[in-house]
Amino acid sequence: MREQHIEYRDGETLLEGFLCYDESLPGPRPTVLINHASNGRDEFVERKARRLAWQGYACFALDNYGKDKLGRTPEESSALMAPFMQDRRRLLTRLQAGLAVAKGLPIVNSKRVAVMGFCFGGLCTLDLARANADVRGVVSFHGLLKPSGFTEPKIRAKVLMLHGYDDPMAPPEDVLAIASELTAAGADWQLHAYGQTVHAFTNPKANDRANGKQYDESADRRSWHALEEFLAEVLK
Amino acid sequence: MREQHIEYRDGETLLEGFLCYDESLPGPRPTVLINHASNGRDEFVERKARRLAWQGYACFALDNYGKDKLGRTPEESSALMAPFMQDRRRLLTRLQAGLAVAKGLPIVNSKRVAVMGFCFGGLCTLDLARANADVRGVVSFHGLLKPSGFTEPKIRAKVLMLHGYDDPMAPPEDVLAIASELTAAGADWQLHAYGQTVHAFTNPKANDRANGKQYDESADRRSWHALEEFLAEVLK
Repeated sequence: MREQHIEYRDGETLLEGFLCYDESLPGPRPTVLINHASNGRDEFVERKARRLAWQGYACFALDNYGKDKLGRTPEESSALMAPFMQDRRRLLTRLQAGLAVAKGLPIVNSKRVAVMGFCFGGLCTLDLARANADVRGVVSFHGLLKPSGFTEPKIRAKVLMLHGYDDPMAPPEDVLAIASELTAAGADWQLHAYGQTVHAFTNPKANDRANGKQYDESADRRSWHALEEFLAEVLK
Repeated sequence: MREQHIEYRDGETLLEGFLCYDESLPGPRPTVLINHASNGRDEFVERKARRLAWQGYACFALDNYGKDKLGRTPEESSALMAPFMQDRRRLLTRLQAGLAVAKGLPIVNSKRVAVMGFCFGGLCTLDLARANADVRGVVSFHGLLKPSGFTEPKIRAKVLMLHGYDDPMAPPEDVLAIASELTAAGADWQLHAYGQTVHAFTNPKANDRANGKQYDESADRRSWHALEEFLAEVLK
């Protein structure tokens, strides 16, 4: 398995993505971009990248904060995320910088790219679809669903949202709102809601049910199956 | 492939189910019961039964109306369905009669039973879960979601609802209501919502978008994959 850190820039900001692929397989290949959660491009997304690389995809974990910028506490993570939540166009520019770098990599088949992400990274992923970035499909895991303000009139990417129904960061009113938003934009969208499930259900370290963040083995497994099925559909 | 019509009774009413299984495989096996849509136990559910039988399950298509009772027009189907929608306990008794017959069949592993259904049959399927029928899981395809009035305090069967988000027979308020109902009952539930998709999306003969009934190839395919994944989980 080939692993490589790749520096790139958004304006003055130095960023560092993580590329992973099985070098025993030939040529440019279908590729999955991964957007990290609010704490930054950490071991969690690198593990996801490796897992998909074993299935034959090239994976590129984007860095949306800056090289070596990691939130070590919830407060630090919130502080890193906040400027982008307040300025979604700035976030979009950051995301597009990473997408452009990924598409230029020799291992990447730039016509067969999907994007996925977790929590804040789910929102990043949805924003690329909303802006009609040239990707085949996007997958949000316990993503924030708040509207961006720049949804295109006709979204081309297929959209899959994997959602804990009791997620306090994406309550039912946000689900209804994004359903209306994506329907109006003509998107091919799906939402899988998991009952008795809160935020961060894919993260084995999440263990704070009282504050709505808790790992859930079955939602983790089901959502991963849904991802695999979706990638097989959109990247084939 | 072995196919057999099996007569059974609910009180005075003679019913006729359809059993299907691959006789080349050994012994009692995991079983899927199928509840028909508002028109009755027709060729559509028999085809579904055959498809699952090829995957190794025993399948039994319940008859909830009576032997040879089929709605040939939407009006006839509504007339057949109406008494059961008005008296959900009467419907439950009918469903339980079919479940008991199925569990007594030699080919059926009575400890590994799941139930699925379409439209009105989705509601039948959900009602069995609500009443805590002894089954492992239930799957509703474009089912009606209206509350039954008899939901048990702790639902044991796993629940999967496959839902067209624009289904006029199950609008967003019904989705929110059943989500609350199943959450309160502690159920392990999932809902897959498909955007741009209306009622009857699995039925190739549905072709009335103006009235919210329309076949949809991708929702049909995606929902079938979800069914397969779910059956593998609950009947293993």
